[in-house]
Amino acid sequence: MNYERLKQPLVLVIFGITGDLAQRKLLPALYQLAKADELPEQLRIVGVSRRDVTKAAVFSQLQAFVNEPDYDVAVEQRLKDHTEMRQMDLLDKGAYDALLQHLQEIEAGIGEDGCRLYYLSIPSQAFTPIIRLLGETGHNAPLAGGKDAPRLLIEKPFGYDLASARELIAVLGEHFGEGQVYRIDHYVAKETVQNILTFRFHNPLFESIWNNRHIDHISIMAHEKIDIEGRANFYEQTGALRDFIQSHMLQLLAITTMSRPPQLESDEIHTEKIKLLEAVQPIAPNQVSQQTIRGQYEGYRDEVSNPDSLTETFARMQLWIDNEDWTGVPIVLETGKALNEKLTEISVCFRQPDDSVTEQNKLVFRIQPQEGITLRLQTKRPGIQNVTGSADMDFDYAKSFNQRPAEAYERVIVDAIRGDQTLFATSAEVIRSWEIVENVLEQWSHSQAGLQVYAKGSEGPVETEQYKAQ
Amino acid sequence: MNYERLKQPLVLVIFGITGDLAQRKLLPALYQLAKADELPEQLRIVGVSRRDVTKAAVFSQLQAFVNEPDYDVAVEQRLKDHTEMRQMDLLDKGAYDALLQHLQEIEAGIGEDGCRLYYLSIPSQAFTPIIRLLGETGHNAPLAGGKDAPRLLIEKPFGYDLASARELIAVLGEHFGEGQVYRIDHYVAKETVQNILTFRFHNPLFESIWNNRHIDHISIMAHEKIDIEGRANFYEQTGALRDFIQSHMLQLLAITTMSRPPQLESDEIHTEKIKLLEAVQPIAPNQVSQQTIRGQYEGYRDEVSNPDSLTETFARMQLWIDNEDWTGVPIVLETGKALNEKLTEISVCFRQPDDSVTEQNKLVFRIQPQEGITLRLQTKRPGIQNVTGSADMDFDYAKSFNQRPAEAYERVIVDAIRGDQTLFATSAEVIRSWEIVENVLEQWSHSQAGLQVYAKGSEGPVETEQYKAQ
Repeated sequence: MNYERLKQPLVLVIFGITGDLAQRKLLPALYQLAKADELPEQLRIVGVSRRDVTKAAVFSQLQAFVNEPDYDVAVEQRLKDHTEMRQMDLLDKGAYDALLQHLQEIEAGIGEDGCRLYYLSIPSQAFTPIIRLLGETGHNAPLAGGKDAPRLLIEKPFGYDLASARELIAVLGEHFGEGQVYRIDHYVAKETVQNILTFRFHNPLFESIWNNRHIDHISIMAHEKIDIEGRANFYEQTGALRDFIQSHMLQLLAITTMSRPPQLESDEIHTEKIKLLEAVQPIAPNQVSQQTIRGQYEGYRDEVSNPDSLTETFARMQLWIDNEDWTGVPIVLETGKALNEKLTEISVCFRQPDDSVTEQNKLVFRIQPQEGITLRLQTKRPGIQNVTGSADMDFDYAKSFNQRPAEAYERVIVDAIRGDQTLFATSAEVIRSWEIVENVLEQWSHSQAGLQVYAKGSEGPVETEQYKAQ
Repeated sequence: MNYERLKQPLVLVIFGITGDLAQRKLLPALYQLAKADELPEQLRIVGVSRRDVTKAAVFSQLQAFVNEPDYDVAVEQRLKDHTEMRQMDLLDKGAYDALLQHLQEIEAGIGEDGCRLYYLSIPSQAFTPIIRLLGETGHNAPLAGGKDAPRLLIEKPFGYDLASARELIAVLGEHFGEGQVYRIDHYVAKETVQNILTFRFHNPLFESIWNNRHIDHISIMAHEKIDIEGRANFYEQTGALRDFIQSHMLQLLAITTMSRPPQLESDEIHTEKIKLLEAVQPIAPNQVSQQTIRGQYEGYRDEVSNPDSLTETFARMQLWIDNEDWTGVPIVLETGKALNEKLTEISVCFRQPDDSVTEQNKLVFRIQPQEGITLRLQTKRPGIQNVTGSADMDFDYAKSFNQRPAEAYERVIVDAIRGDQTLFATSAEVIRSWEIVENVLEQWSHSQAGLQVYAKGSEGPVETEQYKAQ
């Protein structure tokens, strides 16, 4: 990794700086990085917006979103001083020409050997035209200093299905090289998720048993207590499968089960990730009903004003990986809204000898709410009898290290600046992930067979309970 | 295990009931068992003593030694009510005849289908004559009810060297069957030590990597802060090697490395233990200086009034196990008095890949002072950089189970009552343990070459530090 890159000048162009995501996540992350002195000294932020918005308005809510007792207004001021707002018509090619000229002038001032990032914090429908216009007007070309080509940070959804994902990626590929495109998956940028790779590949203890000879099954859960929180339009077009499984959860699966790359470097990690995803068997049309469960919480249809809605707010999917290490190990992905708990974790359950009656050994990567790792083992219960009981060995991220964890968006920004694509999804990964779920999406969109209604605040559809007993 | 045995009548004959061990450990253990209702209802304790001692005197210090806030005098009274004192000349055969007759009368009263235990809480020099007299007068014969033969509980030392151990075992064997003899090792009866077997054989996660393909080395430490506490005569004849390594620590080694027995039953466990000990290579005479370190704390010679004392208060020994699972894995046993810490633990250190720079994975069975298990792993340190750090996953015995742990002596008594020899050393194990250390004892007794003086409260002899860095 090229840490010294962070010292080079940076121009950060934010499309949609007034949007929800930029306000809630991006600006607070910039604030934290500035406060920790982890941003380049030569920094210019250009906030692009269709409407005429003042800098004051853009920063007016920062303190509320940062939400920390020792908020430092001097840091906010420093960020503000480095920011300028630019109103432009996002469909006017001329405006892009003018923007490029302006950026080049800035770079001439602060140093042309730096880095330029475009952060597209905009609705996905707007991706294609803006990417095209950026490409056609030369925003994709290396900086005058010749060192690096500009980078594009984009947020999911990366397509709505396999066909639209292919289209989006094709458009991107016309104008930007794969090395210029940073597809953010904020789940993958979480500390605990990054830690999975460290844990797997720096602990020989676990590395040697990370396969179907020792592992019985893996379950990846992302349970939310919140419902769709009023985002009816967005959610009606999305659903749990697209929103979580196709994206975050298949990434988690790949990180948990990919083979060891020769080096823990971006290219080699992505090579192993795509190999793994290619070994994951897409669910065949005639297997959808066996390998999946879908649910919709009670009252959802009223909430979205669609009495016929087929959108799932809960999805469970059992997958098989067809390679030497994982054949025969069921992998279960499960996510849902309005459930009884907020819990994201990956449970790796180890095989028991055939004749054993004791509980399985289990390693749990706890991603939310309390980041850490738990190992469930069997020990002798205290006392004069020889009775065995389960006991947990815990590693708690916050307690173990007296060090501020980096928020996912801070990590994302820093990695984009230093040109490290490890935590970003490649186009091949995105397409393969759509391929894996395509038949399920297809069947679910045509029929409501199997769509179960579950109570808000419950554990989800009843059929999942048998699995939970494991 | 035969738990219902505890309901049968019990006659417990304690030789040396006024001695230090009986007072400090045995009676408090009986008190705790009585309090927890874990003793047979039909119980008679016969305290044998050379001197004329009153029951009141025997129980006078119990409360102080039990040392708990909610001491229950009613329990003490119950114990007292079941106890009688008997003065006898321990070398007078006629007295043994009379004792036997008396015991049989008691048994006729409370039930002859029970269990009779002789607890020899006496100096080891007195073992042989008393064992002989017990045997010659028929104390070894099955009870009138015909169910069980009486059992003999004895405390180490089991011999002073290989020859004397063989002699003691021969005398025992003349009069008592192996199934009647319970050689106490209070270390092995500690909860955490028992837990090693549970841990190893109920957690497939660890079982599959418990061998030289995954384990780099094992180190077993028993560090004491206390010095010899005035026991000059005893210690001058003993030393660290005899006191700890030949007994407790070789037992710990066997428990940590023995193969899985077909069943976790006493006989099968002992079969695997002796197989393991037979695979441990006795240190050859020409290897003693390479494979051992000995030390004596500063001031020891003054304390024992022997300016030429060769007795070691610190001993370290590196052993090799010559079998398929353990060839090539160094096993280090280390013990000492007047060190900087009180710490007994077994560290199992796992191999690193050749090119790895990170710290080893390490599983530590913590036996004293805070019973538990720690797993040292590598994780990503929080923050935007990819830095790896060590982190501990902890299992704490006291915190994890809301249940009173059994003290070693409670366990020893209960196991002897129920006829479970799992936690007691067999004669074959005792002899083999002497064979392993015999050449070292021999050489150390003849020369002071290599005997290092270390400061009280230090880490021990300097040469051990290089090892500790691991």
